[in-house]
Amino acid sequence: MLYLIGLGLGDAADITVKGLQAVKSCSRVYLEAYTSILTVGKEALEEYYGMELILADRDMVEQGADEILKDADVTDVAFLVVGDPFGATTHSDLVLRAVHAGIPYKVIHNASIMNAVGCCGLQLYNFGETVSLVFWTDTWRPESFYDKICKNRTAGLHTLCLLDIKVKEQSIENMMRGKKIYEPPRFMTVSQAADQLIQIIQRRREEGAELGVTENTVCVGVARLGADDQRICTATLQQLVSCDLGGPLHSLVITGQLHPLEVDMLRVNAEPNALEHLHMLDSSTYCS
Amino acid sequence: MLYLIGLGLGDAADITVKGLQAVKSCSRVYLEAYTSILTVGKEALEEYYGMELILADRDMVEQGADEILKDADVTDVAFLVVGDPFGATTHSDLVLRAVHAGIPYKVIHNASIMNAVGCCGLQLYNFGETVSLVFWTDTWRPESFYDKICKNRTAGLHTLCLLDIKVKEQSIENMMRGKKIYEPPRFMTVSQAADQLIQIIQRRREEGAELGVTENTVCVGVARLGADDQRICTATLQQLVSCDLGGPLHSLVITGQLHPLEVDMLRVNAEPNALEHLHMLDSSTYCS
Repeated sequence: MLYLIGLGLGDAADITVKGLQAVKSCSRVYLEAYTSILTVGKEALEEYYGMELILADRDMVEQGADEILKDADVTDVAFLVVGDPFGATTHSDLVLRAVHAGIPYKVIHNASIMNAVGCCGLQLYNFGETVSLVFWTDTWRPESFYDKICKNRTAGLHTLCLLDIKVKEQSIENMMRGKKIYEPPRFMTVSQAADQLIQIIQRRREEGAELGVTENTVCVGVARLGADDQRICTATLQQLVSCDLGGPLHSLVITGQLHPLEVDMLRVNAEPNALEHLHMLDSSTYCS
Repeated sequence: MLYLIGLGLGDAADITVKGLQAVKSCSRVYLEAYTSILTVGKEALEEYYGMELILADRDMVEQGADEILKDADVTDVAFLVVGDPFGATTHSDLVLRAVHAGIPYKVIHNASIMNAVGCCGLQLYNFGETVSLVFWTDTWRPESFYDKICKNRTAGLHTLCLLDIKVKEQSIENMMRGKKIYEPPRFMTVSQAADQLIQIIQRRREEGAELGVTENTVCVGVARLGADDQRICTATLQQLVSCDLGGPLHSLVITGQLHPLEVDMLRVNAEPNALEHLHMLDSSTYCS
């Protein structure tokens, strides 16, 4: 059996009881380690489970799937994923390989940022399409996420922005020389994401475009959701640029239209004056 | 401390280790029991935790919140919710009451249908706004969910349809007589949901409207997600009308545009001929 087990979002104790039982029954346990990170590392998990973990980086999952699935028809193998195995990233490819090899698989679900973000007070069924923000380079500054945010806002919907993670990236120089030397991991902060968005807004304003998001739009920055030191910060987009939410992982929510109960919940974690640009659309709807 | 603890979607062992530890530390434990159900009942949970649970129906949560929060500043109280505490239904009101009473609260997240539905093979970031389908009555047949599905499909996005749950409902007769006699619980099936959608499609077709969804649109019915006997069934909307997925809870997904990897995953659980109406929009996009 191949078990795909979600680890949830905080520390080792966020695994489900069912997931922990499955891990302990397995002869090999892989830890997926390139799409997300837990606030505790591999060693803490190994101590918690009382067994060794095999780190599965992108190369291994994409090219070494046969190794992961080896003998999984006669023994139990676990593949651990931070969040839910089908959360922000899907491991469909591994599942399809298992299916085609006749290996049964079982998913043990857990919280992911896709549903846990509801704790900021915004209702999940008022979210539109989720978007991803990537680190800009000198030559590559994609803006398509901005248009999706505006589309969601036009429909009254909130947008969850997943922020870039760079793990085991090679510099172009090292890649060209064939050197497997990796850059230190990088995680986009809420502040960096807000700054990218404001650069787009400013450029579009200069072009005379109508703006779907402005510096005064109410947003929510979240950091280390589910961990003991999680941070939730409701602020204007402008305020978030200078907001330090600490270590990874960060996510950003751009609000759409707000129900009064959502506004009350946002107020619990709001920076001073964060909500002063809210205006009432009708008796039960607010917008910024 | 008020703990809001997600129970996940399957049985008692789907609680997280952290959640179980918190439950065991509490002097009172409430089980929210009107927005969702676990495949195991209250008694099974009580046996698993080794303690008594207090069933919290809608009346208690909405009008008896003071009772739930009583002494929670000096003792630990848990409020258990199937799925995630901020999943398909939000318990913001209880949280706000705690905040205003100066009672600290902590959320222990878990899987909800909002993220676990990813296991059907459709990628979560390709979902648009979630919709709810309610049981129609003779005089109340809302169709607004249909328009939201079409809007999502126009944008290429999938739609998760949450299906109605009626727990502790009074008949109008009993309500008027002030009798607290409740109807047996009812849960909308995928088949009933598909039938409602097809009725709308037929009516709009007669009106000559352009159709955003048809009988041949590829959909996915899911039942008891996370439980050992979960069912995932990929089929056309028409096929789903005669599809029996067994006991509650059911949910329905209407696909938008599909990536080839999503099509491959859908094929794993597909009814015969379910995907024959798929056509290619371009080399990497399919639609039905």
